[in-house]
Amino acid sequence: MQTSLRPKHIWLDLGKGLLSPLASTKRTLKDLDGFFVDAQATENILKSGQDPIIYEVYESLQPQEDGHLNFGTTILHPGKIGKEFYMTKGHFHMKEASSEVYLGLRGEGLILLQSSTGNSECLRMSQGDLIYVPPRWGHRTVNVGAEELVFFFTYQADAGHDYESLKKEQGFSKLVIEEHGRVNVVDNPRFMTRI
Amino acid sequence: MQTSLRPKHIWLDLGKGLLSPLASTKRTLKDLDGFFVDAQATENILKSGQDPIIYEVYESLQPQEDGHLNFGTTILHPGKIGKEFYMTKGHFHMKEASSEVYLGLRGEGLILLQSSTGNSECLRMSQGDLIYVPPRWGHRTVNVGAEELVFFFTYQADAGHDYESLKKEQGFSKLVIEEHGRVNVVDNPRFMTRI
Repeated sequence: MQTSLRPKHIWLDLGKGLLSPLASTKRTLKDLDGFFVDAQATENILKSGQDPIIYEVYESLQPQEDGHLNFGTTILHPGKIGKEFYMTKGHFHMKEASSEVYLGLRGEGLILLQSSTGNSECLRMSQGDLIYVPPRWGHRTVNVGAEELVFFFTYQADAGHDYESLKKEQGFSKLVIEEHGRVNVVDNPRFMTRI
Repeated sequence: MQTSLRPKHIWLDLGKGLLSPLASTKRTLKDLDGFFVDAQATENILKSGQDPIIYEVYESLQPQEDGHLNFGTTILHPGKIGKEFYMTKGHFHMKEASSEVYLGLRGEGLILLQSSTGNSECLRMSQGDLIYVPPRWGHRTVNVGAEELVFFFTYQADAGHDYESLKKEQGFSKLVIEEHGRVNVVDNPRFMTRI
């Protein structure tokens, strides 16, 4: 039996991605230490005293119970760490029977998807792109543009997040990097299959 | 265990609400016979040989199993049947442990919400309005503007829809009508509580 709730009304600025009256959670480079493949580039930036915001999340959280949905927006800033574009940590859901829907609102992005059995996909996630992430697919979003990438998401409130499996030690099988001014999706040399 | 699926990529025209490459399901006045309070007005239109489209739904359906999410858009046309604004049938979910998230994309709308224990709410659903419909709340959307109302929705794929409880015999406790050029939310004289 789920917790009883009243309906909620929240205002989403479709252009900027802000959700009123919520506050955002900010993820800085320090929070993503270990996620970008170029550890030296991360270290150099942090050592210089900088800690840039990589992304911000606005989220309406419901009780962590079967039957509820969480939803919100992510604002992924433009930039690179070494050759690798700014990205979210990425996650698998702890509960296998859970999925996620993404809707691109602004900017120029990609979503990397990786199944627990080793398949991977890379899909466009820009304005109007709707992505269905089925159960057992890890996913990470990458900003390959010059402006903020803004997208909306919804998932089961009891899904849970496993971020650790997608740190660079196991990592995603693919990296999104800039080479000679072009966006390239390449194999991650450090990738070890989770099987 | 849910059915295994690959990720899906669908394109949503955020202005028009069209989902490519899906086809829409059209709901005409004949499909909504019994939902508008003014039965005579419905009968007069249908007898004259007209059967206007009230709304269209684009939907990405997943297997009806725990862990999957369905999502899509509704395009609710502008108009009135008698004094009552065009609206969706409205529904409760068959599975109590299920909810729905709505995001207004265009137009001027309201969402009527009604709990299984007799509470009701009426919230704005226009561009940027995000509505969380918690478990056990029936909901119906109403177009109170002069243009199409377009919104996005997501819900658990195994939720199921109960439309019959919200036909006029039991109905919603509130009606949205136009009187003297104004939008009024009034008590439904035919409403009988479901308790």
